[in-house]
Amino acid sequence: LNVDRSNAVLVAHALTGSADAEAWWSGIVGPDKLINPEQYFVICINTLGSCYGSTGPESINPETTAKYVATFPEITIRDIARTQLHLLQELGIFEIALAIGGSMGGMVILELGLLAKETRTVTIHKLVAIAAGSEHSAWRVAFSSTIRKTIQAFEPLGESGLREGLRIARQLATISYRSSSEFGRRFGRKIGEGEKFEVENYLEHQGQKIVDRFSVYSYLTLTRAMELYDLTRGKAVDAIHQLEGLDTDILLVGISSDILYLEEELRTFAKQLPNARYETLLAECGHDSFLIATDELAEIVRPFLEAECKGIITNDVHASRF
Amino acid sequence: LNVDRSNAVLVAHALTGSADAEAWWSGIVGPDKLINPEQYFVICINTLGSCYGSTGPESINPETTAKYVATFPEITIRDIARTQLHLLQELGIFEIALAIGGSMGGMVILELGLLAKETRTVTIHKLVAIAAGSEHSAWRVAFSSTIRKTIQAFEPLGESGLREGLRIARQLATISYRSSSEFGRRFGRKIGEGEKFEVENYLEHQGQKIVDRFSVYSYLTLTRAMELYDLTRGKAVDAIHQLEGLDTDILLVGISSDILYLEEELRTFAKQLPNARYETLLAECGHDSFLIATDELAEIVRPFLEAECKGIITNDVHASRF
Repeated sequence: LNVDRSNAVLVAHALTGSADAEAWWSGIVGPDKLINPEQYFVICINTLGSCYGSTGPESINPETTAKYVATFPEITIRDIARTQLHLLQELGIFEIALAIGGSMGGMVILELGLLAKETRTVTIHKLVAIAAGSEHSAWRVAFSSTIRKTIQAFEPLGESGLREGLRIARQLATISYRSSSEFGRRFGRKIGEGEKFEVENYLEHQGQKIVDRFSVYSYLTLTRAMELYDLTRGKAVDAIHQLEGLDTDILLVGISSDILYLEEELRTFAKQLPNARYETLLAECGHDSFLIATDELAEIVRPFLEAECKGIITNDVHASRF
Repeated sequence: LNVDRSNAVLVAHALTGSADAEAWWSGIVGPDKLINPEQYFVICINTLGSCYGSTGPESINPETTAKYVATFPEITIRDIARTQLHLLQELGIFEIALAIGGSMGGMVILELGLLAKETRTVTIHKLVAIAAGSEHSAWRVAFSSTIRKTIQAFEPLGESGLREGLRIARQLATISYRSSSEFGRRFGRKIGEGEKFEVENYLEHQGQKIVDRFSVYSYLTLTRAMELYDLTRGKAVDAIHQLEGLDTDILLVGISSDILYLEEELRTFAKQLPNARYETLLAECGHDSFLIATDELAEIVRPFLEAECKGIITNDVHASRF
């Protein structure tokens, strides 16, 4: 952290990520990368509800002295943002040079952007949200809720059933995170081990990996939180007015092959914000491309990061946009 | 059937369809529709493996005098086409003015086109395949096999478990059959009964409907058959040469919002065929649009149906294409 405490970068992780940004986003965060820890004070906070450090369903409920598991309360992305804001205050960080995140991480920093503005506790100079919108669309709610209910349908089979549910859920989710052209190029109709199509073996491997490393209850908690995500949720003011509060410099990045977030939706969202621009990451691996095509992503974010802040625009300029 | 037995139209149904084409494709088959039973002798054959009339997993195995259910053998789309060819011969139909089908129905008529040519038993003058390719792509295998394995994972819960699996499978499949923009327009983030999102209630309703009307074993049999679908499957000759056999007049129709069959894939397939053209159906409801946007589909198919047959092209012309 530099002497005027102005070089903090907040990185927000996605669904099954952790506070170790250099591990899960090694193409973006690290020495000689876009977000270089020698230049920036990088903060990445494990989300509320996760199983990688912050309080979540695998934590002990002090009232019962047992794990919360299925009794962990329903939370929202805003709750997650609120906990991150608290921690920033605890750390004495009142200025954020850049807040950045993809997918659920993008939702978290967008909610954080609004909260920071409302509470006047932290100034966020620049905000980059990749493959994240202003709310979970019907299409994403459809995927997420059906996958979540698939896990829950295995409850009669106990803990091993829930793990089987998580294994399948991850395979289904992985399909939505990738793209037809990537699968065609990588797998085609090649047959692999066990006389299965290679794409089947790939998906089963993804399913096994998540069962080995993640909590099924955290998965249920965080997918439901995303379904509830809506920047205007519970706000008395109308939606456009609410989004106007996000008048920091914003870059929204869509991904050309993402079936969950179509470019048109993110372009429309950018138009609703007073000081936002939209860019498309041309990449083949669908929603997950923000974790894979990191060189290309860095090239999009770098000019935005290095440009001078436009600052908070005046009401006059603002009014002329609507 | 007219006196020279030349006005037969073969309609092939999709995964959970039946022989009653006027019921499931009322916008295409019926009085004053594109395929008018007063003009054409309309044949629609329930597929092998289905539960709506032809032999399938719910049929009695004569060897055991019990239903086949899970012991029903693995079948391919080519097996289905073979049974349909047999029936056409039984009916004394040696000429088909038009063979048409969407999704699995498209696969069936493409396999039938090749079989008819190889066996020289039936002449198919025109063939229309909507939202169907030359093989099941890695992306479609991914969706289909994971959904199929979701059902099978419920086997420890017995028959009721399998039905629960089918209920969930249909919800997942429905997402892949529709589109983001349709769901956004129809449901948005509206809350419906039971404090659920309306899109959740819609999907659950689709799940319940399939459990009430379809066999889980037929569903498993036919989804696996589609995963195995590949026009060049088991053929000694190379793929391009194989597809050249399909030298009848062919119209391939893609759907602009279909995430399972991208336009580019179907355009490429059309280029591999000696006498095929490609058209796009501009429609919002994804893969299912061939069942919904039937007026628009009829406008695309009508000129093709009413045009004179180009006939089987000569080897000279053919060779000039490659």
